[in-house]
Amino acid sequence: MDWLDYGTDNCSIRRTLDVIGERWTLLVLREAFNGVRRFDRIRARTGISDAVLADRLRTLTDAGVLAAAPYKEQGRRTRHEYRLTARGLDLYPVLVSLLQWGDRHLGDADGPAVVLTHRDCGEEVHAVVTCAAGHALESAREGAAHPGPGARRAV
Amino acid sequence: MDWLDYGTDNCSIRRTLDVIGERWTLLVLREAFNGVRRFDRIRARTGISDAVLADRLRTLTDAGVLAAAPYKEQGRRTRHEYRLTARGLDLYPVLVSLLQWGDRHLGDADGPAVVLTHRDCGEEVHAVVTCAAGHALESAREGAAHPGPGARRAV
Repeated sequence: MDWLDYGTDNCSIRRTLDVIGERWTLLVLREAFNGVRRFDRIRARTGISDAVLADRLRTLTDAGVLAAAPYKEQGRRTRHEYRLTARGLDLYPVLVSLLQWGDRHLGDADGPAVVLTHRDCGEEVHAVVTCAAGHALESAREGAAHPGPGARRAV
Repeated sequence: MDWLDYGTDNCSIRRTLDVIGERWTLLVLREAFNGVRRFDRIRARTGISDAVLADRLRTLTDAGVLAAAPYKEQGRRTRHEYRLTARGLDLYPVLVSLLQWGDRHLGDADGPAVVLTHRDCGEEVHAVVTCAAGHALESAREGAAHPGPGARRAV
């Protein structure tokens, strides 16, 4: 098997990156997972300009990753906050694995800035790769990639 | 606790994105995980221009994610192939979770183009979030984020 015999037009990694594969977009998602949902708060936490933030929120709502919900503070006009949809919540392993890699390989001596825990038991959480038989893969070398049913021949 | 009381200067997600948070970079990594390691082969699989590919390979080798190893084909000059280092292999959960999200939410009716399996047992692999007590988190809602030992107050 040679990967060059197969096309990449229908690659799921590329499709995911078409939605979230941009630095600012992922930082907006970081905030969504932290429960920071309002425009001015996301802007304060990320330093993104108004125009870029509006654009990224539009990308994420168009893709069904975030949903805008109206809210109104006393004496002010109605605004929107941006909540993760089921589709968006499903990106959790992406965000956890990005965080974990940074903690492990680019972390400071004083330890991680953010710690993730399991609400039920309080233990720390991690992104791992496991198989359907329940084995945790200790290294990427334990995994193999094969052309699947949707694989297309290169043209 | 309000996240706006904490700074994001030492955010590990941002640091990871500083290295790999660009679409072409992640597509180069996809190829590395598939064992596609040579310049012309990566270019053929990704459609990246020579200049951009050379730049992204430099970024990834400078960051210690890929290592260049010389190879020589009969009658041609020495070239390099790009192999994942231990640091690079550690990005496996990132790539698997990007693939999985695309398969789940943006997939075609004919099924995934690529299937990942555990070499030892042949079962399909998935990226999951688990806690140190061994519980798999079914949803991001089961996780909580807290300021860690390296958290810094916002200035």
